[in-house]
Amino acid sequence: MRTLKVALGARSYPIHIGAGLLGRGDLVLPCLKAPLAAIVSNETVAPLYLAGFSDMLRASGVRVTEIVLPDGEQHKNGRTLDRIYDALLQNRCERATTLIALGGGVIGDLAGFAAATYQRGIPFIQAPTTLLAQVDSSVGGKTGINHPLGKNMIGAFYQPRLVLADTDTLKTLPERELSAGLAEVIKYGLIRDLPFLDWLEDNMARLRGRDAGALSHAIERSCINKAEIVAEDETESGVRALLNLGHTFGHAIEAGLGYGAWLHGEAVAAGTVMAAELSRRLGWLNEADVSRIAALFEQAGLPVRGPALSADRYLEWMALDKKVAAGKLRLVLLEALGKAVIRDDAPESAIRAAIEACCHV
Amino acid sequence: MRTLKVALGARSYPIHIGAGLLGRGDLVLPCLKAPLAAIVSNETVAPLYLAGFSDMLRASGVRVTEIVLPDGEQHKNGRTLDRIYDALLQNRCERATTLIALGGGVIGDLAGFAAATYQRGIPFIQAPTTLLAQVDSSVGGKTGINHPLGKNMIGAFYQPRLVLADTDTLKTLPERELSAGLAEVIKYGLIRDLPFLDWLEDNMARLRGRDAGALSHAIERSCINKAEIVAEDETESGVRALLNLGHTFGHAIEAGLGYGAWLHGEAVAAGTVMAAELSRRLGWLNEADVSRIAALFEQAGLPVRGPALSADRYLEWMALDKKVAAGKLRLVLLEALGKAVIRDDAPESAIRAAIEACCHV
Repeated sequence: MRTLKVALGARSYPIHIGAGLLGRGDLVLPCLKAPLAAIVSNETVAPLYLAGFSDMLRASGVRVTEIVLPDGEQHKNGRTLDRIYDALLQNRCERATTLIALGGGVIGDLAGFAAATYQRGIPFIQAPTTLLAQVDSSVGGKTGINHPLGKNMIGAFYQPRLVLADTDTLKTLPERELSAGLAEVIKYGLIRDLPFLDWLEDNMARLRGRDAGALSHAIERSCINKAEIVAEDETESGVRALLNLGHTFGHAIEAGLGYGAWLHGEAVAAGTVMAAELSRRLGWLNEADVSRIAALFEQAGLPVRGPALSADRYLEWMALDKKVAAGKLRLVLLEALGKAVIRDDAPESAIRAAIEACCHV
Repeated sequence: MRTLKVALGARSYPIHIGAGLLGRGDLVLPCLKAPLAAIVSNETVAPLYLAGFSDMLRASGVRVTEIVLPDGEQHKNGRTLDRIYDALLQNRCERATTLIALGGGVIGDLAGFAAATYQRGIPFIQAPTTLLAQVDSSVGGKTGINHPLGKNMIGAFYQPRLVLADTDTLKTLPERELSAGLAEVIKYGLIRDLPFLDWLEDNMARLRGRDAGALSHAIERSCINKAEIVAEDETESGVRALLNLGHTFGHAIEAGLGYGAWLHGEAVAAGTVMAAELSRRLGWLNEADVSRIAALFEQAGLPVRGPALSADRYLEWMALDKKVAAGKLRLVLLEALGKAVIRDDAPESAIRAAIEACCHV
């Protein structure tokens, strides 16, 4: 097991990464405020891991409430959130009850937002079971739900007390989900860690073959990058926005097709290629750089072209992005490989051209 | 104008109290992050004050979105909250847009929760227009909505940047609402400010006659008490719970009758008499103390007996209170006039007897 720390003063917390961690009561129990827990999971993950995890806690005297939700990004909405609230109230969960998210990014975001808002905030633990959640969404306290008019529009910054990344859960992860997680792993290399980008190019086959050592290394390196950024800028007033490379384009893909049609990581991959193409058109990257990025996503089993929506549709959805300021679209672009920047001065014509160059027609 | 401060480190903010403050752009404009504002009000307050307040801001170059909601506690729910989200998104409000609550406690709670959760948090200003909101709910950062299974069950602690209490707005406040606000004013005297309790007994007629000097003094003294408590315990892990004197009984009345049947302050008044009666049965107050409390609420035009629900119904709703810990009901009781305490050891038989003694049969 490796342990990292997210340094946020009184709200600092550990990230444990390793095999078999869902069986480690010694890691979970000291983080509970009272022997009361509510575990939120989904219909895919629950049959695999919920009973074992619950039983482990119950054997230590914890009263456990189980809340199982439907699986998929299309359920990351107010209706599903209400199911969590209803279950917490029906089971008389209190302020000292710890909410535990056992699942991927959708479960973490939903359960985290429920924890942030139930009785004005109850303790929260992340137990991510997908690569995407282990390398990205479980760390840093972003929680929330989608709104019909935009992704993650309703939410809160709410830090967990603990992130428990059990790498054994990746053994049952569908291939497509593994690839989706790799999109966010590649992101860290592109925005701030060129040596890691090199390593990923050399080790992508091992990662897709689920080599335990390679996966652990990639998760750890991703979490180190994420923890450093979050410690510097918890509420995304500055550098944290760099983590959204490809996400503004990606959100347009997800919203434009309807949530759940593409996985988040898939949309981020195609969106990142658009951001790279735009960076090339602005004179920062060269064609070889863009090809290198696209090749790495393809090696990871990810799409590198967006769906055939019109550029107008893309721009319409992008205008709803949370990074819009004073009516201007702020985009994360690449000045060079390993160096991301935020710019609000990309000409619309260039954005449009980059979208069209990277879309299926 | 008098100005107090809520001391919360980097999140400290001023409370301005005085006549004509809704016209004071010099107080509001420096608190805006950008010249963008969304004002949330209700169908009762908007016709009186919204246009003037909006025009004042627009004249200073602020782009203003107006969101007018139905009036009443029965609308403090997820459906009304969604109307705020929808309007913010439809009007392309961004992270730098300041949300301003112009109204009473319901508007402040709803708009504050929307501000806490829209795009994971946007700047927030309270412009309370009822006595209850000016003396209590606009100060301290409690925001939230009701759930069919309990009052204020969903919410967040989210501090405003400014509280602007324009005492002129009390001139149009219905008599019943004025009385409801006085319930929370009396609360401060009972829990920690015996000299203020004496003053209230001497000046209740002036307050009900809307004497401007008396009202200003009562608001200021209430806010001083509230600000001291909030500075000491922002998230209610300790002393802040004392502010809930009468509220656990009161919430049972509100929920038991359906939100909106009784005003919050009315339920708190009757609930406080129950808490006082229970305190007497536990040997702390004498009969004269309880009579003195009831007489003051009556002088304020408030009910001192609860509705005719069975004690079982009361206890059922009280068990859902947020102050429940380890399954035990925690009640705010009075050790003496001017001295409240939190106890979790009141025998159920005594609670039941106090309810029955203070209910209509």
